[in-house]
Amino acid sequence: MESNVISHASGAVSNDFGRALCVITGASKGFGRCLAKQIAALLSPGSALVLVARSGDKLRELQTDLAASDAGKKGLVIRCVTADLAQKEAVEETMKAAKQTNHLDIDRLILINNAASLGDVSRFAVSFTDPTETSSYLAFNVSSALSLTASLMDAFPKRPGLRRYVVNVSSLAALKPIPSWVLYCTGKAARDMMFRVLAAEEPELRVLNYAPGPLDTDMHLQARTDSGDLAVQSSMRDSHTQGQVLTCEESGTKLLKLLLEDNFTSGGHLDFYDV
Amino acid sequence: MESNVISHASGAVSNDFGRALCVITGASKGFGRCLAKQIAALLSPGSALVLVARSGDKLRELQTDLAASDAGKKGLVIRCVTADLAQKEAVEETMKAAKQTNHLDIDRLILINNAASLGDVSRFAVSFTDPTETSSYLAFNVSSALSLTASLMDAFPKRPGLRRYVVNVSSLAALKPIPSWVLYCTGKAARDMMFRVLAAEEPELRVLNYAPGPLDTDMHLQARTDSGDLAVQSSMRDSHTQGQVLTCEESGTKLLKLLLEDNFTSGGHLDFYDV
Repeated sequence: MESNVISHASGAVSNDFGRALCVITGASKGFGRCLAKQIAALLSPGSALVLVARSGDKLRELQTDLAASDAGKKGLVIRCVTADLAQKEAVEETMKAAKQTNHLDIDRLILINNAASLGDVSRFAVSFTDPTETSSYLAFNVSSALSLTASLMDAFPKRPGLRRYVVNVSSLAALKPIPSWVLYCTGKAARDMMFRVLAAEEPELRVLNYAPGPLDTDMHLQARTDSGDLAVQSSMRDSHTQGQVLTCEESGTKLLKLLLEDNFTSGGHLDFYDV
Repeated sequence: MESNVISHASGAVSNDFGRALCVITGASKGFGRCLAKQIAALLSPGSALVLVARSGDKLRELQTDLAASDAGKKGLVIRCVTADLAQKEAVEETMKAAKQTNHLDIDRLILINNAASLGDVSRFAVSFTDPTETSSYLAFNVSSALSLTASLMDAFPKRPGLRRYVVNVSSLAALKPIPSWVLYCTGKAARDMMFRVLAAEEPELRVLNYAPGPLDTDMHLQARTDSGDLAVQSSMRDSHTQGQVLTCEESGTKLLKLLLEDNFTSGGHLDFYDV
């Protein structure tokens, strides 16, 4: 992490996030869990981290780890929300946890829309005859991200001194069609556009579509094991075998650098390999 | 329409669609209704047109018009399906009507995924706090198109002599974020990607994302009246006042020319103004 980065937006030097409220979805494992740990180390005392995921056990384990970390010892507040973002109540539960932080007590608001599922990649588009399967995928992967983003921006509105960041964990699949990944590509393309519209509407918000690159996660394992398109499957398996898959730490470090530098074009799509 | 167009795919001259099954959604008004009339005139006797829309009255009126047209008199079969594509049953009803045509009796299958809604454009993204609103929009505008496309391709599989076309009525909004149109932009971006994946998976299918340009329809009226972003609203109002809005006939003619010429890159996005 560079230490003397000049922020484009404010002119202020940022080598940490100051006193912030940070909400991360899909925080129990993979990239979300890694980001939670990395961000925790960059928050000033009095900050709060709201972690959302379906798996309560894994969330609590992360909470224990974070509480024992330097940040935790310095008073970082960690709130866990065990909820399935496919359900409307999950957004409400998350908002309840977020609102325990007072709007006036923070300098930054950071939302990381990370939760996502790969969908059934073992089948091709022509097999998706049941609209409820697609709708349920989109509810979790698209609608909940818009709802949570809107709710959080509504509860923590623009005010002098508050800098607000919304990250969409995107993918190459938002730009490039990948055979046998129809749900994933569709959902990621939808999300990118959704956040581009948000950025166009709210010039004061800092919105980033960040494609983290191929990460060594359960999702990558699922993709290289299950992909119905055998060329996709073997190319992913090869890249894993050859060590071309990134660690979550590498990619998370780059994302956090982008946020600290604060030079990105709001609404833009940035890939790990582009920056 | 050019009369001596050489088809890229087959080498055959096509100045009509031959004996075809053509399914058009959102057929009761606007672009869909216009396409139904234009396509009807290009179908050989023995062809069938399946028209899907929510408004039964308008569909029946169109059916009467078509039955009285030259194509109707020469024996074009017209089947109307009154159904709301937000509901799973609508796809099933449409498939029932489509399957009345025998797979072996046609040379072409044409699906025009035209049905769409603008969504509430009076509000900005930050107001979409209710995920059910977004999910219901996506069910109608995204899931149903995938489901219908998959079901139709499944029921009328690839065979020698059958040429299959899938059109997604797209929009500039699939590529460009438009303030206060978050649902529409998100849905159109999602659809474009969905059909790009389909094209990548099924090389024999001819898939076209066609952006028809600004059309003089009820949707345009809604957009120029309701758009919450006043710059968008007034720019649309100006283009309408200044006669820069296209007729459905103009744009439909261009789409059908693209299909007859059959030179487009499958999965590509073509705009009225590009071709």
